Amino acid sequence: MGSPAHKRPSGSGGGGGLPTSTSQNGGGARGGRGVLPRGRQMQKTFNNIKITILCGFVTILVLRGTIGVGYLGSSSADAVNQNIIEETNRILAEIRSDSDPTDLEGPQETEMSTNETYALGPKITDWDSQRKVWLDKNPEFPSTVNGKARILLLTGSPPKPCDNPIGDHYLLKSVKNKIDYCRLHGIEIVYNMAHLDKELAGYWAKLPMIRRLMLSHPEVEWIWWMDSDAWFTDILFQIPLVRYEKHNLVIHGYPDLLFDQKSWIALNTGSFLLRNCQWSMDLLDAWAPMGPKGPIRDEAGKVLTAYLKGRPAFEADDQSALIYLLLSQKDTWMEKVFVENQYYLHGFWEGLVDKYEEMMEKYHPGLGDERWPFVTHFVGCKPCGSYADYAVERCLKSMERAFNFADNQVLKLYGFGHRGLLSPKIKRIRNETVTPLEFVDKFDIRRTTQVETKPQN
Amino acid sequence: MGSPAHKRPSGSGGGGGLPTSTSQNGGGARGGRGVLPRGRQMQKTFNNIKITILCGFVTILVLRGTIGVGYLGSSSADAVNQNIIEETNRILAEIRSDSDPTDLEGPQETEMSTNETYALGPKITDWDSQRKVWLDKNPEFPSTVNGKARILLLTGSPPKPCDNPIGDHYLLKSVKNKIDYCRLHGIEIVYNMAHLDKELAGYWAKLPMIRRLMLSHPEVEWIWWMDSDAWFTDILFQIPLVRYEKHNLVIHGYPDLLFDQKSWIALNTGSFLLRNCQWSMDLLDAWAPMGPKGPIRDEAGKVLTAYLKGRPAFEADDQSALIYLLLSQKDTWMEKVFVENQYYLHGFWEGLVDKYEEMMEKYHPGLGDERWPFVTHFVGCKPCGSYADYAVERCLKSMERAFNFADNQVLKLYGFGHRGLLSPKIKRIRNETVTPLEFVDKFDIRRTTQVETKPQN
Repeated sequence: MGSPAHKRPSGSGGGGGLPTSTSQNGGGARGGRGVLPRGRQMQKTFNNIKITILCGFVTILVLRGTIGVGYLGSSSADAVNQNIIEETNRILAEIRSDSDPTDLEGPQETEMSTNETYALGPKITDWDSQRKVWLDKNPEFPSTVNGKARILLLTGSPPKPCDNPIGDHYLLKSVKNKIDYCRLHGIEIVYNMAHLDKELAGYWAKLPMIRRLMLSHPEVEWIWWMDSDAWFTDILFQIPLVRYEKHNLVIHGYPDLLFDQKSWIALNTGSFLLRNCQWSMDLLDAWAPMGPKGPIRDEAGKVLTAYLKGRPAFEADDQSALIYLLLSQKDTWMEKVFVENQYYLHGFWEGLVDKYEEMMEKYHPGLGDERWPFVTHFVGCKPCGSYADYAVERCLKSMERAFNFADNQVLKLYGFGHRGLLSPKIKRIRNETVTPLEFVDKFDIRRTTQVETKPQN
Repeated sequence: MGSPAHKRPSGSGGGGGLPTSTSQNGGGARGGRGVLPRGRQMQKTFNNIKITILCGFVTILVLRGTIGVGYLGSSSADAVNQNIIEETNRILAEIRSDSDPTDLEGPQETEMSTNETYALGPKITDWDSQRKVWLDKNPEFPSTVNGKARILLLTGSPPKPCDNPIGDHYLLKSVKNKIDYCRLHGIEIVYNMAHLDKELAGYWAKLPMIRRLMLSHPEVEWIWWMDSDAWFTDILFQIPLVRYEKHNLVIHGYPDLLFDQKSWIALNTGSFLLRNCQWSMDLLDAWAPMGPKGPIRDEAGKVLTAYLKGRPAFEADDQSALIYLLLSQKDTWMEKVFVENQYYLHGFWEGLVDKYEEMMEKYHPGLGDERWPFVTHFVGCKPCGSYADYAVERCLKSMERAFNFADNQVLKLYGFGHRGLLSPKIKRIRNETVTPLEFVDKFDIRRTTQVETKPQN
C-alpha cells in the first residue's frame, strides 16, 4: 500500500489523479493545458504543490504504518525481533490447538453443577497401613535418609508460555533457586506442568498433584508445596522437622488472625508441608470440594467472602477454602496443624526485600526469620500474568534482588558473588588457590548444617 | 498527530487548508464565493470531494500508525500486552544497567591480545592426591553411592532473558526435563546462570564452571555437561559407567569422522562426561587457550576452519577446539577418551523427532539408541536467540514433541500421559484405584533400573 512520493497529478480523471484542467469537461478527455490568466496559473501551481505535499505526507504515513509505531528510524533488528515474536506466537497457538490426530479422548467440556460432589479420587481409608507394609517390604527406599525424613518439594507452573514473556524468565530463575536449595539439602523436586484434573486448575491444581505424589511415593514422608513466586533466601536454613513430630500440616500463619479475626490471610498456602499419611488424604478430600471451576467455585467464593475477614469477592481459592475448613471443623483438624511463624516458611516480600543489604551487614544465613528470611514470597507480583497487584518495576527489581541475595549464598562456595543485588554479573570474592579444598571445608554448607531446633510449644 | 476526518477545506491559505476560491488573490483573504460557470463549479466540487476523501484517508492512516500495524479492530488486550512487554523490557534494561552503587569492582574492559596466554586458574598438579586425602577424611561424602559413582549434571543459560521470549519458556521446559531424569537417577544438578570468567563467555563458559565444580565438589566423580537444548528422551536409560573405568572423557562421536576426515562435527560437546581428576584439569587447561574472546578467539577460529573439514568461518568454538586438541595431541589424550556411539549420549534431533510414534509402537524405554534415543539434541534451533539455522516452526514443534515424549515416560508412574505429542494436556492412562502401590511396584523406574552393560572394546 504505497503511493509514489512525488507523482505529478495527471490529466486523467479516472482512479487517483486529480484533474489539472479547468475545462468544462470535468474528467475523461485528456485536455491540453490552455493558456490561463497569470493569477489563475499561480493558483493552480499553488494547488498542485499542496497536492504534492499532501501525497508525500500520505506516503510517509503509509510507510510508518507499515514498519511500525515509533521513530521512522527504528532499527531493523527491532522489527525483526517483533516479527519473530509474532510468528512464534502464531506457531505456538497452532501447535497447541489440540488438533493432534492421536488425541483419542476428547476434552470434557461440562462444568460440575452445584448438585454434584467432587472427589479427588476413590476413597482410601487404610493409607497408613498400606504405606507401612510397603516400606517394610522395600528397605532400599526408606522414609528417612541419614536421620532426616525424606522431603519432596512440589512446585510448578502452567504448561503454556506466560502472558508476559518476562514471566518465563523469572520462572526459570525461580526453579534454579529451588534446584540450588534442594541440592544442598537432599530434597527431591517435582516440577509440575500438567493439569491432572481439569476441574481443579489454577491455584487448585496443587491438590490432585499432592495426592498423586503421596500415593506414588510412599518413601516420601513430607510433600512440601511451594509456589513458583516463592524463593529461597536463606540457603543454610533447614526445616526444623523435629518440631512437627506430632503434626501433619505445617503452614505459616498467625493464630490470632486465624481464630480471633478469621482473616483470609491468616495462613499462607504458598509454602506448606503435608505429611504423607491418611490424615492428609482426608484433609485433601475435605479441602477439594470448593475447587471445581464454574458454579461450584463461584458459589463457594461467595461463602468464603462472607465468612472471612477482608476477603474480596472472587471465586473460591485454595487458601481461603483451607482457612474456612480449619475454622469450621476446628476440632477435627487443628490438633495436627502447626501454625508456624517462628521463621519465614512464607515471607511476604514487601517488608523484606529492601532490607537485604542491612541483613548482609548485620546478620548471617541460617536464621530463617526476619533477620534473614527463609523464603521470600512475591505474592501479588504475578510476573507470568498480565494483571499484577503491584507495580511491575517494583516487582521485577525486588525479584532480581531476592534471586541475587540467595545466589550469593550459593556462589560463596565457588568464590564468587554478584556485583550488586541488581546485577547479573559476578565477581571473585576470594583469590584462586592451588589448595581449593580448604574452602570446601569452610564454605560447603552441607558440612555446616544447623543444629536441630528443640521442639517448642 | 491526527487530523479531523471530515474537515471542510477553509478559505484561508495558511497552514493546511486548501483554497476553494479561484480568486486572483491565491491565499490570505477570505473571499466569498463568486458566481462561477457551471462546469467550473462542478469541477471545483469534484476537487473538493477528492481533497476531502484524501484527508479522510490521511486521518485513517494516522490512526492506524498510532494504534499499531494490523487490523484497525485489534483488541485492546493485545495493545495492553504489547505495552506490558515494552515496559518490562525498559525496566529490565534499567535494572541490569549495572549502575548499582554497591558494585565495588568495575568490569575489565580490555580483551586479551594474542601475545598473552590465558589460564583458567593457578596450575594444580596434585589434584588426584588432594582429592583422595579429602575423601578419606570425609567418609560421609563418598564418591560412590549405592554402588554408583556420583554424577553431577551441569547445565545452564545466560543470565539475561532470551532475545526471543519463547526461548525462556523452552529453557524452563528443558530444565524440568532434566529435573525429572536426574531425580529418577540420583544425579545432582547445577544450573549455571553466571559467567565465571568474562573472557570465556558463550559456549566457552562451561570450561571455567566445570573446573570450579571439580575443585569444589571432591565427592563428585563425574561432571556431566549438558546443553540447554539437549533433552532427555529415554528416562529409563542409565549411563553405563562400567564401560568407562579406564577413561576420563566420555563424548559422543565417530572415530572415522574424527581421525580420517578430521570433521568439525566428529564429536559433540553438547553432552559429555569428564571425570573429576588431574587428567581432566590438564585437559581443561589445554583446551581453554583458544577461548578468550576477541583477537585470540578470532584468530583461533581461522586455524580451526583451515584444519577441520566442513567448518564454516567463525570464531573458535569449544567443540572445534577440542577436536583440534585431541587430533593434534593425539598421543597425549586419546588413550583416556571414550568416543561413544553405541547409544545417543547426544542424538541429533532431525533424524529422530519424526519417529517418536513409531518408537512408541515398536520399542520401549531403556534402549538409549536410535530405537529410543537417550538424548535428543536440538542443535541449531536456538530458541533463545534470534537467528536459528532451522525454521522456527519445525524447531518449536519438534521440541514440544520431544518434551512430551519424555514427559509421558515420567507421567506413566502417575497414571497419565499426554493426549498427543503436541498437546500440553494430559489424560488418564489407567483408572484410579484404592491400592495404588501395585502400580508403584510396576512402574517406578527406580525399581526397574537396567542391568549394567558389560565393558566392551
